[in-house]
Amino acid sequence: MATINEHFLKLPANYLFSEIRKRVRDFRTNHPEAHIISLGIGDVTQPLAPAVVAAMKRAVEEMSKQETFHGYGPWEGYNFLREAIIKRDFNPRGVELDLDEVFISDGSKCDLANLQEVFGPDNVVAVADPVFPVYVDTNVMAGRTGERRENGQYEGIIYMPCTPGNDFTPELPGTHADLVYLCYPNNPTGAVATKEALETWINHAREHRSIILFDAAYAAYIADPAIPQSIYEIEGAKEVAVEFRSFSKSAGFTGIRCAYTVVPKDLQAYHGDGSPVAVNPLWFRRQSTKFNSVSYITQRGAAAALGNEGWKQCQQTIATYMRSADRLCKAFTNLGYTVYGGTDAPYIWMETPDGQSSWDFFHWLLDKAHVVCTPGSGFGAAGEGFVRLSAFATPANVDGVLERIEELAR
Amino acid sequence: MATINEHFLKLPANYLFSEIRKRVRDFRTNHPEAHIISLGIGDVTQPLAPAVVAAMKRAVEEMSKQETFHGYGPWEGYNFLREAIIKRDFNPRGVELDLDEVFISDGSKCDLANLQEVFGPDNVVAVADPVFPVYVDTNVMAGRTGERRENGQYEGIIYMPCTPGNDFTPELPGTHADLVYLCYPNNPTGAVATKEALETWINHAREHRSIILFDAAYAAYIADPAIPQSIYEIEGAKEVAVEFRSFSKSAGFTGIRCAYTVVPKDLQAYHGDGSPVAVNPLWFRRQSTKFNSVSYITQRGAAAALGNEGWKQCQQTIATYMRSADRLCKAFTNLGYTVYGGTDAPYIWMETPDGQSSWDFFHWLLDKAHVVCTPGSGFGAAGEGFVRLSAFATPANVDGVLERIEELAR
Repeated sequence: MATINEHFLKLPANYLFSEIRKRVRDFRTNHPEAHIISLGIGDVTQPLAPAVVAAMKRAVEEMSKQETFHGYGPWEGYNFLREAIIKRDFNPRGVELDLDEVFISDGSKCDLANLQEVFGPDNVVAVADPVFPVYVDTNVMAGRTGERRENGQYEGIIYMPCTPGNDFTPELPGTHADLVYLCYPNNPTGAVATKEALETWINHAREHRSIILFDAAYAAYIADPAIPQSIYEIEGAKEVAVEFRSFSKSAGFTGIRCAYTVVPKDLQAYHGDGSPVAVNPLWFRRQSTKFNSVSYITQRGAAAALGNEGWKQCQQTIATYMRSADRLCKAFTNLGYTVYGGTDAPYIWMETPDGQSSWDFFHWLLDKAHVVCTPGSGFGAAGEGFVRLSAFATPANVDGVLERIEELAR
Repeated sequence: MATINEHFLKLPANYLFSEIRKRVRDFRTNHPEAHIISLGIGDVTQPLAPAVVAAMKRAVEEMSKQETFHGYGPWEGYNFLREAIIKRDFNPRGVELDLDEVFISDGSKCDLANLQEVFGPDNVVAVADPVFPVYVDTNVMAGRTGERRENGQYEGIIYMPCTPGNDFTPELPGTHADLVYLCYPNNPTGAVATKEALETWINHAREHRSIILFDAAYAAYIADPAIPQSIYEIEGAKEVAVEFRSFSKSAGFTGIRCAYTVVPKDLQAYHGDGSPVAVNPLWFRRQSTKFNSVSYITQRGAAAALGNEGWKQCQQTIATYMRSADRLCKAFTNLGYTVYGGTDAPYIWMETPDGQSSWDFFHWLLDKAHVVCTPGSGFGAAGEGFVRLSAFATPANVDGVLERIEELAR
């Protein structure tokens, strides 16, 4: 008799964003005339950079001729892309990496979901609250938690609240944690971490021999030059941290799928008896067995996004989104709302008015303004009473949102 | 202290094909002048079909304009592709499927590796021997096996030998199995399964409430019209079987990455107490949480490969490979070798001469003819004394192989 993985049943049936999609679909059925604008799921709207488009067309053309056709690529990604990544994203920040420390993949979500597989079942996981749901859900599936509580939290996970009270900077976990997920710039709060804050985390991890899973998918949105873009700007980080980066938001690749994960060769986990094991070869074994890399065409596009021309074009797109973030922040602030984030991240974390619940405000905004946001409670118990607004809408749709909310306030 | 998943250490350090790659690289270092021809890894060499190239270029163009840009696609894949799949691959064989039974992915290897996650740790796994290594390795990682024995087999796995003695048709597992991996057309032996053989498997699974994981990645190579292309041509299969299909070999997508998996809504697994659970929603939950679908450009290309024009072009490419298979079979047979497969599959399973070990023959062939094959022992204990030859080489390279082996025999 084939039995199921019972841990799956601890999860609510729907992933947060499929739940939102369902509720929006229901609304659309009842209001077919409504022009709905989404500030919900963090999905980009601006077209690919011209340099990326040109590179991908060339790559498609290569695939059309036997002499230049590419079959299976290296499991870990093409060196042309890994080199471009190190040169563009790390060397300018004073970070040196070897090629075989960079693993190309089809998404940071996937890598963040899959990396936990190389760790044992008894590791204690710590996450910020609110948090991107994938960190927790994948550890639930893997059996690293107990049951789900009424507030949506799981037994056995350490939640580190991030609130206006602590400036959205979680305190070090009081209970001992083995795997610590950090996300900066933060999704959903839009907060960033100073060099000093990250140093505290690295020192804590070295002391406790824990590992930091550092989600830097939004690094390209950091405007403040004093804020680290990579965890490896912190001394000693290579021994205790994995970093996740994505082309989804930096180059508009949400529908193209390309990301990368840095697993330094110095990074160590441990046997039960405390003797060290390098994580890099375990991840290579996982990826070469369960994954088969990313389309050659996609990798050519990603490399072009890191080239001089493509990079400049992507920076312009990022500036467009950040202008939208600024406009949304100002408009909601003027209307009396309290907002956070939106300066070094494409997300705005907004308090709901009058103590409304996140889902109540979600429905109110959808009903009154036909605008979709993401309920903060979907990101964790400490997100209750907040919503996340994404700045990735088109400028025209941001105009629409501003008109509607100003109209509503009259 | 972050501890590792100790099950990973049961695996040898290298996946079979990375081991071959390493040995070929060593040979190349010592023989820089050698022109090496690979009949090893099953990688296609013919360019993409013109209809696919055109569709992908159009899709890249769409991504270059805001009005036609595509961000995140549906987790389960675009309906235009799922519809094309059902219409081309199933309806003509008398099989009806609902759209939400078809899940698009970036590779059958990935799906075959990942699907086991929705099942409990105590399921007993049965595989053919020889077998595509991913089925076993991923269950080792998940802790469903004991230690590795000297012959490469793992404690706790049921191995079903496939030999010339049983016509490469495994007998039903004597011990009770919960998850049974079957692959037809078979990688590596090139064998196919008759309708009667598959009926026996389906009846056995229904009786034992086990689940068949049916890898049909090479279905497009079946020439004999009496051989089922889909497991769902067998009555009752929807209750007990998942089917994996790929564009890798049918449309030359090894470097593009697109596949799909059919999880029927009637398919059931069980709680420990024997009550049934539908597998389809569990797989949707897994995919929507840990995966983010496939490039829009890739999905447009895959749909074009199923369109009338693209499909005809792909059939011509398949015919090219099958002519190579036929030529290789005849040439080696003429030289006194015993070969199997190669008529309804792109693989030839060849006995090594004079009882040589698989790796000895691998090195002999590389050394003498500069030709790479895949050692049969890499696919399992019952593969010892065989090698797999792939018919995916270019016709010019097949010419080269034939010249060299005929020269050697003189």
